[in-house]
Amino acid sequence: MAYNQDMSFVQKITQRMNNSLLCVGLDSDYEKLPDVVKKNSTLEESIFNFNKEIIDSTYDFVSAFKINVVFYAGYGISGLKALRKTNQYIKKYYPAIQIIADCKRSEMLRSAELAAKELFEEFLFDAFTVTPWFGYDTVEPYKKYKDKAIFITGHDSNPTAPEIQEVELKNGQFLYEYVAELIHKKWVQSGNVFIEAGLTYPKQLKKIREICGDEMIILAVGLGPQGGKLEDIVYGLNSKGNNLIISASRDIIFASLDKDFSVKARDKAKEISENINIIRREFVNSSLL
Amino acid sequence: MAYNQDMSFVQKITQRMNNSLLCVGLDSDYEKLPDVVKKNSTLEESIFNFNKEIIDSTYDFVSAFKINVVFYAGYGISGLKALRKTNQYIKKYYPAIQIIADCKRSEMLRSAELAAKELFEEFLFDAFTVTPWFGYDTVEPYKKYKDKAIFITGHDSNPTAPEIQEVELKNGQFLYEYVAELIHKKWVQSGNVFIEAGLTYPKQLKKIREICGDEMIILAVGLGPQGGKLEDIVYGLNSKGNNLIISASRDIIFASLDKDFSVKARDKAKEISENINIIRREFVNSSLL
Repeated sequence: MAYNQDMSFVQKITQRMNNSLLCVGLDSDYEKLPDVVKKNSTLEESIFNFNKEIIDSTYDFVSAFKINVVFYAGYGISGLKALRKTNQYIKKYYPAIQIIADCKRSEMLRSAELAAKELFEEFLFDAFTVTPWFGYDTVEPYKKYKDKAIFITGHDSNPTAPEIQEVELKNGQFLYEYVAELIHKKWVQSGNVFIEAGLTYPKQLKKIREICGDEMIILAVGLGPQGGKLEDIVYGLNSKGNNLIISASRDIIFASLDKDFSVKARDKAKEISENINIIRREFVNSSLL
Repeated sequence: MAYNQDMSFVQKITQRMNNSLLCVGLDSDYEKLPDVVKKNSTLEESIFNFNKEIIDSTYDFVSAFKINVVFYAGYGISGLKALRKTNQYIKKYYPAIQIIADCKRSEMLRSAELAAKELFEEFLFDAFTVTPWFGYDTVEPYKKYKDKAIFITGHDSNPTAPEIQEVELKNGQFLYEYVAELIHKKWVQSGNVFIEAGLTYPKQLKKIREICGDEMIILAVGLGPQGGKLEDIVYGLNSKGNNLIISASRDIIFASLDKDFSVKARDKAKEISENINIIRREFVNSSLL
């Protein structure tokens, strides 16, 4: 299918995943930005200008951009203005690239409608992350946004994720397995509900892929500083070496804090994206043996 | 203890709870505001002016105000400006009244620090709600804000809450009981971690009170339109008829959509607050028998 603007989230991202599974996380924490972008600039300008350069230099190696909303909201209205400007920029110059909000929402009913309005309409995201804690009420309202998507946090990448997510149930499952099954069997019917999982827990990532099957798009988080290893993406790939979006942020956007930050970000994005493709090819070839 | 500005969240709210347990929810959805406040006004002005009148007319019957952030964020930057202005107004004229953000956050590490900066510093909240899905990592970063507080969503008020929260564990507990126990035994040490529970599930509210003991402040949600009944607050009160914050929103703020909306809001807040106090007194008296 040739690219066109009217394609849905899943159509657009499927097209991009042929070339790259890498998702660059624009977690552009103002405090950590290179001095060169901060000099003589407001907070809003600094964040936007930094993002603009990162986007322009990495776009051809990404399947999607991911934005952790609190990295902007933490700086109040000015931070949120920089966020909206960033997304406007991506929509204008790179409309084929989808933008995922990492915001772990738990809204329902009217609140969920307003979350959709906030994230899809006001801030121009194409997808966002949602927690399963409140059950189907926090998923159902988004199913009507067929051209958009949500990712439900399945097994997360943080150290204490198992405290709740690996509680053992009466039926012998771990809680995250029960949730993955709920998502796969009951919650996913509209083709726009997907799952997030941590690369830092490869065994659990593998289990989620087994439960959810080849069609499921998994957003893998935790690569790099959090401890997730690139070779472990094989546990998240589907049988065709696909349907896995692998997010990396600090390793790329802060690859250098000097004037060359965008060049270094590009080099790093290229390197990770290519390494992912090598692993994909080897994975598919070994499956064919 | 006489009131002073330097008191912590828990000191201030404890003082207020002597007179009222009612918490007015400023879920001031622009679409639903009375025409009289919208006429000749921008969205930002309309929301702020509405809130100002509601606050001025209900403040003496409340223990706290609660704000569901997405009701503002859903209207983008303008909505969020109205939110900040509202909280600035409360801080200026009613500094004894604490403001709780209902936002069900799930942030950790640096993201949690930025959530604290966003909600406590940029938007002037005194407390906010947090989900337990990611374990202790999403609670720990807030413990150092000793003058502030968080409320962890224990058993929620929505219809599908039991889908996850009442999953049966291998040890015989329901998941929400396990979480309440975690909160009570492990997560609460700093005196600023509390719990949220739905009035729509009275049996479960009772269980949470039993697990968490008298010291725990419970934020009870779901009264009124969601199905929670006033008489069921007895299941959430501690043995002294206290430490329960009972949130009501639409019943009060939209008691009338005419010019008299603030008068009717005041009448309704007074009525609910007084009815709560009658139930408290009866509850304490019957415990003494």
